[in-house]
Amino acid sequence: MSEVLPSWNEGTTKQAIVDFVTRVTDEGGSDFVSPNRRIAVFDNDGTLWCEQPLPVQVYYAFDAAKEKASNDPELASREPFKALLTGDMKGVSAQGMPAIIEIVKETHTGITIKEYEESVQTWLQSARHPTLDRPFSELVYQPMLEVLTYLRANGFLTFIVSGGSVEFMRVFAEETYGIAPPQVIGSTFKTHLETRDGIPVIVIDPEIDLFDDKAAKPAAIAKYIGRQPIACFGNSDGDREMLQWTSRGIGVDAPRLGLIVHHTDAEREFAYDRGHVLSGKLDEAWNEAADYGWVLADMKRDWKTIFPGADAKSKRASQ
Amino acid sequence: MSEVLPSWNEGTTKQAIVDFVTRVTDEGGSDFVSPNRRIAVFDNDGTLWCEQPLPVQVYYAFDAAKEKASNDPELASREPFKALLTGDMKGVSAQGMPAIIEIVKETHTGITIKEYEESVQTWLQSARHPTLDRPFSELVYQPMLEVLTYLRANGFLTFIVSGGSVEFMRVFAEETYGIAPPQVIGSTFKTHLETRDGIPVIVIDPEIDLFDDKAAKPAAIAKYIGRQPIACFGNSDGDREMLQWTSRGIGVDAPRLGLIVHHTDAEREFAYDRGHVLSGKLDEAWNEAADYGWVLADMKRDWKTIFPGADAKSKRASQ
Repeated sequence: MSEVLPSWNEGTTKQAIVDFVTRVTDEGGSDFVSPNRRIAVFDNDGTLWCEQPLPVQVYYAFDAAKEKASNDPELASREPFKALLTGDMKGVSAQGMPAIIEIVKETHTGITIKEYEESVQTWLQSARHPTLDRPFSELVYQPMLEVLTYLRANGFLTFIVSGGSVEFMRVFAEETYGIAPPQVIGSTFKTHLETRDGIPVIVIDPEIDLFDDKAAKPAAIAKYIGRQPIACFGNSDGDREMLQWTSRGIGVDAPRLGLIVHHTDAEREFAYDRGHVLSGKLDEAWNEAADYGWVLADMKRDWKTIFPGADAKSKRASQ
Repeated sequence: MSEVLPSWNEGTTKQAIVDFVTRVTDEGGSDFVSPNRRIAVFDNDGTLWCEQPLPVQVYYAFDAAKEKASNDPELASREPFKALLTGDMKGVSAQGMPAIIEIVKETHTGITIKEYEESVQTWLQSARHPTLDRPFSELVYQPMLEVLTYLRANGFLTFIVSGGSVEFMRVFAEETYGIAPPQVIGSTFKTHLETRDGIPVIVIDPEIDLFDDKAAKPAAIAKYIGRQPIACFGNSDGDREMLQWTSRGIGVDAPRLGLIVHHTDAEREFAYDRGHVLSGKLDEAWNEAADYGWVLADMKRDWKTIFPGADAKSKRASQ
């Protein structure tokens, strides 16, 4: 039998995952859970792939907005697009979250889902991370890919439950994570059906339908999955309620696993937690970890490798 | 090899289903579709189970409202609950759709999803159809159960996309249809997360989030499934846009199958189509059937049996 979770160092973290899976899949045991109730939920940004210095989707929005503004003088004359076009990222940042939301709306809505997905697909083929020397699609965490595979090999259904746009993630989640579109849950805009040249199309409207973060995550799980998760993987306070729901929610009598990816490796990836503001802040969930029995996966200590493939392509090599 | 679709009479309807499945699963053929793109969507009321004289969920709402009003003098003194309690169903009907919506809201919201599901579960164990001599859970269509099984045996993912409440259907869909909760899409109320005695729960709020009918169905498919269906089964104008979307939507280059269950059997079930008002009206979709290539399954002509088990338990025996 081949070793499970080969990119995880031996220790209490790896052991906690293996012990949990062993218990719920032991048909003779009191903790056995039937496969249709083995639901595992994963945050995406910072849990399955890199989210620093900015979440990948924000880079897409910036690039798409620059392209759009360069063909639209009216848009180019307005903030935050004006700062974006001139490369004044400090100027964009100074305009705060409302500016980012405006950029996202301008680039994610008013088009059909198919047009949006094709745009993301094209972008992903060439875009690269600003400091890590890789395409974004290779900034997934090898140890987490192994957790996904390990769980599925043990009968689990694996779902993404993320604050990212559902259509953004669906472009790469199946190929990258083995998670097909129906098992990807994320933030959504409202949409409507139109017929264009006899073809029915779904158009994305500039009104937020669901911002899938914090307390919205358990509600989204209830709505989309309809079943109590028994395993949850997150990395920030945005995942806190989803972790709580997984650990204490009722509906299946079984052990639960809550795991927090703790970004401790400034050399190979990034180190951040309590002090972080824009994304990935880990503060309240960290305080509650012991009480809820959540496992902290320390990236520096627990992970042999961070990204798939050669370590030569890691952060250090690019600097 | 055992015969496929044994409850379907030989003829063009059965042949259309078999031909479609054969084409998209023929690995050497030009119409081959990989299993992860074999998405089939099914309406529920009138397509998978009986919806006459009223949809099953309405009977649940009536019974639950009567029970609630009998313990709540204030509620019992108000219409439509007053008429409902005295058994004055004509009085309830006279108050029209707003009265039914009020009864549904009163019985489906303000409680946790778990409480709601337990209530439905208990009700389904004893409730029986008013004229067909069966529990509601046995009013599923045997030929459609065979279609579900046949499609899944051929690698299809089968989804319900219905105007019924998602939580209502999830109570019985897995056992009855083999369709697990994550593959059940339906109407939803808004919800929120609460903590009660340290337990996180999802409470259903009295505000409609999605009425999953007509043009909302393709949008819901795009949001929940994220992939173009290639087979769609419906029975009424409520399924028209979903059928159109399946037949003409872009995103997968493959043959499509649209099938409409036509209720033509007044003896064994009910006969209704254009003239029907409250639910199951089939008018515009019927007019378009030839243009879109939709197959009409004539229940009287095409189905050997309607319900599972002995025909002795069918409508005639109960009268």
